[in-house]
Order: sequence, then C-alpha cells, then structure tokens
Amino acid sequence: MNEISALNLLDEKLQILNQTKLPLVEEYILTDDLERICESIEKLEVRGAPAIGIAAAYGFALSFKLKSELNDNFIMQVYSRLAKTRPTAKNLFFAIDRMLKVAKKSNQSNIYHNLIEEAIKIHKEDIEMCNKMGENGIEIFKKKSIVLTHCNTGSLATGGSGTALSVIKTAFYNNLIEMVFVDETRPLLQGSRLTAFELEKVGIPFKIIVDSAASHTILTQNVDLVITGADRIASNGDSANKIGTYNLAISCNYHKIPFYIAAPSSTIDSQIKNGKGIIIEERSNSEITSLNGNEITKSKYNTFSPAFDVTPNSLISGIITEKQVFRFPYKFV
Amino acid sequence: MNEISALNLLDEKLQILNQTKLPLVEEYILTDDLERICESIEKLEVRGAPAIGIAAAYGFALSFKLKSELNDNFIMQVYSRLAKTRPTAKNLFFAIDRMLKVAKKSNQSNIYHNLIEEAIKIHKEDIEMCNKMGENGIEIFKKKSIVLTHCNTGSLATGGSGTALSVIKTAFYNNLIEMVFVDETRPLLQGSRLTAFELEKVGIPFKIIVDSAASHTILTQNVDLVITGADRIASNGDSANKIGTYNLAISCNYHKIPFYIAAPSSTIDSQIKNGKGIIIEERSNSEITSLNGNEITKSKYNTFSPAFDVTPNSLISGIITEKQVFRFPYKFV
Repeated sequence: MNEISALNLLDEKLQILNQTKLPLVEEYILTDDLERICESIEKLEVRGAPAIGIAAAYGFALSFKLKSELNDNFIMQVYSRLAKTRPTAKNLFFAIDRMLKVAKKSNQSNIYHNLIEEAIKIHKEDIEMCNKMGENGIEIFKKKSIVLTHCNTGSLATGGSGTALSVIKTAFYNNLIEMVFVDETRPLLQGSRLTAFELEKVGIPFKIIVDSAASHTILTQNVDLVITGADRIASNGDSANKIGTYNLAISCNYHKIPFYIAAPSSTIDSQIKNGKGIIIEERSNSEITSLNGNEITKSKYNTFSPAFDVTPNSLISGIITEKQVFRFPYKFV
Repeated sequence: MNEISALNLLDEKLQILNQTKLPLVEEYILTDDLERICESIEKLEVRGAPAIGIAAAYGFALSFKLKSELNDNFIMQVYSRLAKTRPTAKNLFFAIDRMLKVAKKSNQSNIYHNLIEEAIKIHKEDIEMCNKMGENGIEIFKKKSIVLTHCNTGSLATGGSGTALSVIKTAFYNNLIEMVFVDETRPLLQGSRLTAFELEKVGIPFKIIVDSAASHTILTQNVDLVITGADRIASNGDSANKIGTYNLAISCNYHKIPFYIAAPSSTIDSQIKNGKGIIIEERSNSEITSLNGNEITKSKYNTFSPAFDVTPNSLISGIITEKQVFRFPYKFV
C-alpha cells in the first residue's frame, strides 16, 4: 500500500498535493505562507470539503509561527482571509471557527502551539472518521466483489482515506475487491483523473469507463454493487451527489444490485425534510464546451449543467457513516 | 431552415463536409479524385454508414470521368480501393456492389453516365428513406414535446436528413418540438459536436448535457420522450446502438416515458435472433484517456470502452423505419 495524502504537515510547513495537475504531474507545494495556502484553496489545488477545512486549519495555525506580537486584529485578519476562499464550503467554517475559539483563549507564548495542536486534531478526527466509514462499510460485501464508483471520494477529497473510496480500500485490504469500474465523471473528470490516480497508488485493479457505459458495464461485467459519496443528505435519506449518481441508482434498481452511499454523519442536514429542499447549483457552459482550456465544441452553444442530482431514498440500499450503516426507511436520530 | 449536407455532387465533383473539424471549423473538400475520396472515408471526414456508402458510390463514378480507355482491371481496381476503406461498413458494400454491376453492363461510351446516374439514385433513395422515417415518426408526438437524443443521427450520418434526427426535424417543422436535450456522447462527442451543429443550422432550440445528466434532465426538465438511432436490430427488436443508449432506455422505463428508435429497415438483421447475437466492438484506451490528441488522464490507465450497447426489446416503445412504426412484440416480416 502506498496511499497518498492531499495534505501533510512537514517540518512546520503544509505540504499540498497539487490536484489541478493530477494525474499527469504529481507536484507538491510546501509552504507556511497564509496567502499561498489561501491561493491553493481558491485555485482548487486542494479540493473536497473536508480537505479544504483541514488546509484552512493548518493555514490558520502557521500564520502564528513567526508572529512576534499578538493582537486580536491579526487573528481576525487571518480568519477573514481564510473565510473568503471558498465561502460555500460548510467544513471550512467548521474548521476556522474552531481555530478562532482556540486563538482567542491563547496568549502570546502558547498561541502557535495551541493552534497547531488544534489543526492536527481536526485532521486526526477526519482520518478517524474515514477509517470508521471504511470499517462500517465492510458489512455490505458478501464476497470478493466487482464494484462501480463515481467521482472522487478518496484521500484527495478528505484528510484521511475518503468516504466511498475508504470503504472500497478497506474492503480491498480485506480481500473483498476484485475490480473497480471508475466512471470518468464528466465534466471535470474527477473519476478518470483523481480516483484512478488513487487506486493506482494503492494497487487496486480498476478500469475507467465513460459515464454512459455504466448500465452496459453493470450488466455485462457482473458488477456486484455501486457505491458513491454524498454532498448533502436530507432527513429522509434523499441524497444529493455529483451529477450522474441518480442515473447509477436507477440502473442498480433495474439490474437488482445494491446502491450505497458513504458520507460522514455531518453530511446529513436535519433542516431539510427531503430532496426537494436541496438546491442544485448550475455550472457554466464552458465546463461542457471546453476541457483544460481547449474548446471541444462551440462555446456559444447552450448547455444544461447541473453540478449535482438527487437520488431518492427508495433507491438507496444503505448509507454508510462513521457511526453505523443506516437502512431504508432512514431515521438518523 | 438551413439544413446542411454531408455530401453534394457539384460541377461533377464531390463536395464533402469535413466532419473531423466540426463544429469549430466548417470546411468543405471538393474533389473528383478517387484516392482523395477514399482518404476522406478513412480519416472519418465523412462518417455514418449511409453517408459512407454514398461517398463511395460517387467516388466509383467519378473515377470514370476522364478515363479514355476502359477495361475490367481498372473497374476492379476502383472497387478494391473503395472496399478497403472501412471494410466493416455494411452500406459501403451495398453501394459499391451496385456500382460494380452497372459498370460491368456498360461500355466505353456510356459507363461514366450510367455510374453517375446510379450514384445519384443511391443518394436519392437514402434521402427518400430519411424523409419517410421523419414522416412516419410524427405519430409518436402527442403534443409539442421536449425530447432527448444521443449521438449523431442526422444529415451528417446519412445522405438525407437522418434517422432519429430526421424524426426530430420533421416534428419541429410540424411545430411539435419545444426543446431538444443533446447528450454530448462521450468519448467522441458526436452529440455536442455534430448534433448540436445540425440543430443550430436548422434553428431547433437545444441544450447540451453531459451523458450522466440524462436521468436528472428527464425528471426535472419534463422530457416527454427519448429517441435514438440504431446500428443493428435483431429479429426480436433488441437493438445495438452507441454506448449509453441502454442507460437511456432504462431511465425512460423508470420515469415512465417512451423510448424510441429510428432506423432504416436495412438495419434489421434477420440472421440474428436476439441481442445476444450482436458482437460489441471494444475501442482503444486512448479514446477515453485523450481528447483531440491531448492526454486528459494517464494513457497507461486501463479502460473498458465498448462502442455499443444492446437495448432489450422490452424497453423500446417503438422502432420507426421508412416502412412503418413497429411496436413490441416486434415482428418485422
């Protein structure tokens, strides 16, 4: 096993694996500069909600490494700069709010020490959560299985081994994975770029497919189950995830194989009754009409480009969290 | 209306719309040179089984335009050169076998005239067949409809207005089309490149989607029906078509909307009992790992890249041919 990390604390600097260049170039950024860390988040060099939170926590702490004089103004400057990097990411605020609390309780002599400890704690909690999802997920494998997954839900998106990909990796270490079919995941190709890269590193056998080949693959390649992550889960279990997930769940239903979701329990939004309450972000034309800056069709053509879709609870065989595997009908409390 | 043509006979030369450059560049090749026409077929500048057959027929005829001396050797040279361009295309042989028969019955003074007439006849028959599919397809529209389609099945693939796209265009001229959602159709993007180009030319409103967004689009954008072409249809109605078609048929079934196929009756292969008899071609890694010659993920990554999938007859609401609309259970004789 040779698992990669999106983020590492190395010699009091943050090492960031630059995901914009993967898998063709494996480049690391090593920095203790707040501005450079913020840029990394903004440019998507580090991505995935949990990973963003952890990068922000380290950025917060490292800002105090060489700071000779402490004042509240500086603390709030650091907080504000981080807050505006990716303001819609829930985990970002979860992390920097915790850091702010620690900063306010500290004094000149211990603030850096306290903040680094808190950042490491946030990181460790995420690693632990990923591991628990992996362990809890073992129960869904009845035998050495052929699985299909979508998007990237691994070490590159989290501080640990991932969500759905943590389940797949843990199953692999328990000799329960024969083959992983990886949806390339248009438009941004997180599957063929990032998931493939992670599986290669760990040594799990995989094949990339175009997203539309999923049903043919399930039927002809004897896929045993499909597992994906989730971006937001309503109280009734309806789950929003990367566009294409709903397609897969329908196909599993038709082929009578199980469809699972793996996500930390923090993904469950008790404020939302059902999938209708989840707002779907629409992306720009250019994500479909160009790739890596090259036009692949006319940029003026209209597109319909939802970032997510919602899979109804009735199509989800189970939701794997760090606490337990929930089953339909979903009651999370 | 401003419908485009893949092929045109202009001043005793063949005008070919270069499809490899569409839609970014609209370039025409004008030639009466057999070798250049063969190259065009080989390089996919002209593609689509019916269009290939017609290009070959014109290429056959034009070889005799300036030929001062006639002999059987030369006729067979022309035949053989055309036969090796795309040897798996059924329509290619249908066309050049007809041309060969005419050539053999002709003499020095009338061969060119006879061959040009036969090529024009093959072309006209295809135009007529496309028109009839369009007319027959009208009956599937109960009202002004939102439709979704996959791949390219239009003027660029045939000598006329197409198969599934002919049905859509005829419906549009009859005020029965509100919007067309176009699957981009990975890996080769025939949807976002070619179908979008054709719809733009004719003025039909359309939006391109990534293939995996089909189910979300059907559900949230009130799609009324899905229609695609077919590459080969078994005697029981099981239909092979571009990878992703099976996915769409499953989604239509789940959402309780009709799924149609439009194809000339020559697509029905009475030698094949059912879909199990249809061999699925697998394509190379590079079609998924690179795009327009640029690597988009590591070229060494394994892929599973079937060119087609098979949709079972039970998921097909109707098969529209130039003869009639067939319905389940399919009996074509």
